[in-house]
Amino acid sequence: MDIQNLVRELKVPNKSKIVMLVADGLGGLPIEPGGATELEAAKTPKLDALARRGVQGNMTMIAPGITPGSGPGHLALFGYDPVKHLIGRGALEATGVGFKLGPKDVAVRCNFCSLDAAGKITDRRAGRIPSEESGPLAVKLRQVKIPGVEVFVEPVKEHRFVVIFRGEGLGGNVADTDPQVTGAAPLDPVAHDEASRRTAEAAKEFIAQARKILAGQPKANGLTLRGFSAAPIIASYEEVYGLKAACIAVYPMYRGLAQLVGMEVIGQPTTLDEEIDVLEKAWHNYDFFFVHFKYTDSRGEDGNYDEKVRMIEQFDAVIPRVVALKPMVLIVTGDHSTPARLASHSWHPVPTLLVSDTCRPDGLTGFGEKQALQGGLGHFQAVYLMPLAMAHAERLGKFGA
Amino acid sequence: MDIQNLVRELKVPNKSKIVMLVADGLGGLPIEPGGATELEAAKTPKLDALARRGVQGNMTMIAPGITPGSGPGHLALFGYDPVKHLIGRGALEATGVGFKLGPKDVAVRCNFCSLDAAGKITDRRAGRIPSEESGPLAVKLRQVKIPGVEVFVEPVKEHRFVVIFRGEGLGGNVADTDPQVTGAAPLDPVAHDEASRRTAEAAKEFIAQARKILAGQPKANGLTLRGFSAAPIIASYEEVYGLKAACIAVYPMYRGLAQLVGMEVIGQPTTLDEEIDVLEKAWHNYDFFFVHFKYTDSRGEDGNYDEKVRMIEQFDAVIPRVVALKPMVLIVTGDHSTPARLASHSWHPVPTLLVSDTCRPDGLTGFGEKQALQGGLGHFQAVYLMPLAMAHAERLGKFGA
Repeated sequence: MDIQNLVRELKVPNKSKIVMLVADGLGGLPIEPGGATELEAAKTPKLDALARRGVQGNMTMIAPGITPGSGPGHLALFGYDPVKHLIGRGALEATGVGFKLGPKDVAVRCNFCSLDAAGKITDRRAGRIPSEESGPLAVKLRQVKIPGVEVFVEPVKEHRFVVIFRGEGLGGNVADTDPQVTGAAPLDPVAHDEASRRTAEAAKEFIAQARKILAGQPKANGLTLRGFSAAPIIASYEEVYGLKAACIAVYPMYRGLAQLVGMEVIGQPTTLDEEIDVLEKAWHNYDFFFVHFKYTDSRGEDGNYDEKVRMIEQFDAVIPRVVALKPMVLIVTGDHSTPARLASHSWHPVPTLLVSDTCRPDGLTGFGEKQALQGGLGHFQAVYLMPLAMAHAERLGKFGA
Repeated sequence: MDIQNLVRELKVPNKSKIVMLVADGLGGLPIEPGGATELEAAKTPKLDALARRGVQGNMTMIAPGITPGSGPGHLALFGYDPVKHLIGRGALEATGVGFKLGPKDVAVRCNFCSLDAAGKITDRRAGRIPSEESGPLAVKLRQVKIPGVEVFVEPVKEHRFVVIFRGEGLGGNVADTDPQVTGAAPLDPVAHDEASRRTAEAAKEFIAQARKILAGQPKANGLTLRGFSAAPIIASYEEVYGLKAACIAVYPMYRGLAQLVGMEVIGQPTTLDEEIDVLEKAWHNYDFFFVHFKYTDSRGEDGNYDEKVRMIEQFDAVIPRVVALKPMVLIVTGDHSTPARLASHSWHPVPTLLVSDTCRPDGLTGFGEKQALQGGLGHFQAVYLMPLAMAHAERLGKFGA
């Protein structure tokens, strides 16, 4: 069964509002055997109060054992099968800098590199060139002209930039040109299928012209191309859910992911408090709000248990402002676990809380991994979160007579 | 989503070791209403100690309500969809006697039977002929020669033996020749499809020559053929998981099943203690160990609750020797339930315990059916056990960027 298709058919409009608060990398692990996870250790009186009114579940993002990247994690939260709708690395990079990919686009992650006189790579990251130097160089590459193909070049940071080829008949199946070692020349772009032949040719032409433009640069006189990928074809939130959706996020990656599913990216917040300011101001203009909080993941990735605990407590502190807006459905969750103990994304399920006047409270008294195991939503797949949100918002009609 | 394909793509090598201890037929039922299951009644201090460090789940082998045979049960444990990778009865029988099936093979379960002068069956099991008599007879049938088809004959036990036809274009879809009643002649082998026509012809020729060889035998002067089946095409553990895997089992059936997925069968143990001896000796040579303990199932099949409890306690006693080896992931599970109360395999889920420094402990204090219901792995399908093992062994990369 394709749950998203079912939801699409059953959706009915109303005036209810849904808020999805995503604390990135929320789930965690104890540091010591028998200890508490970050969320269990954090003092979260506001979330615990919500837990008493709501229903929790232990949410698997993709499948048991599978650790999601940010792309698949968010697609799953948004209700899109993350295996079916795989976002290529180039497309994710373009999305991450806020580039709006269209159906005729192929995006490519590019690295500046250093080449010797023989054209062999001496440094795969162009001597860790700083963004202030690499940015203007990337912009310079916008001079490249390829007949029949529109070319976009966007700086990312340090040695990284992204190129988008736009045109008819451009497949996304082209091999990386990075030989992965120094002492070798960059490879030619080779098409893996007939549909990608024109893309490989465009890439070859791009490289030739770029090399001329970069000639004489002390560090970044060469380039490698990786992760060629066509834009994913994804139905919008409006089409699937009938929701006018807004994204409130600080980081370009999450703004880009939301844009891929047709959310409108609003505000230019730089802190969680500013994000809630944006939420309050835009409250009457949208049906659905995705609010992204980055730093739970960042401190998890740093391996800093105590700071992740503190970030969760910061997150807890803004809850009353969201509750005061009286959303019909309020969801608190993460896009994956990032236990400080592992200092990386992990496969562990994500404790998830849904609060609504229409929910069946499960009698739990606090929000956390162990409590979520006993929750009324049970152990469930992330792609069911949006259907649950829609149902609790009374935006889904009956299936069958 | 094909979870096994996903795991195959995401696997990364490392030096970690995984042990899967399978107590055959582990799950049980209370004898009296309100009573304990065999596992709950057994004194299992070692398993309970593991439970405090690990994470449990209630594992469904195939689907709710479906009782697995040993083949599907083990395939599911090994991470192969047991409905997709159905092992035919002939293939299972061949596998069970340690015959290594190849891609051109069709295996057939055969019975010696007694025929009267008119060629009608008087005893479908050849008077319960003992293995000492039937074995040499089966070996004698190796004299059969069929043009273009290689023939292998392997004794099994009592009236049972197995025949393997090897050749090009041999389909496995041939009807049984056993009429299922006495007083009737064995049926002719009939192909159910065009691809199996040559197999049916080979079988007919085999029967004709065998009848000549057996002519004059007092009990076993005839034969019936059942469960024609081509070798299942199964990717190996090495291909799928990148694991060098070893099987430690007493009984040929389980050794055969492990061999089907490319495990190396090691040692010639005859007891559980000897199995652990083999494990200890081979510890540095493999990444993954499947250790099979038969007697929990045997006593369940006997309908002997108390003895099944005792077998579980024997199983518990060897746990410290396994723990002492410090596997990165230790799994304790079964291939299905065999409640003494039903004296047969059953559909009930199997309590499953995974212990690893990377697991999220669920706070449970003992290992058993009721505790497993509250476990952090939730209610899950057996095909996810290997992905979970791989994840906890940190042998799976991130899905998507």
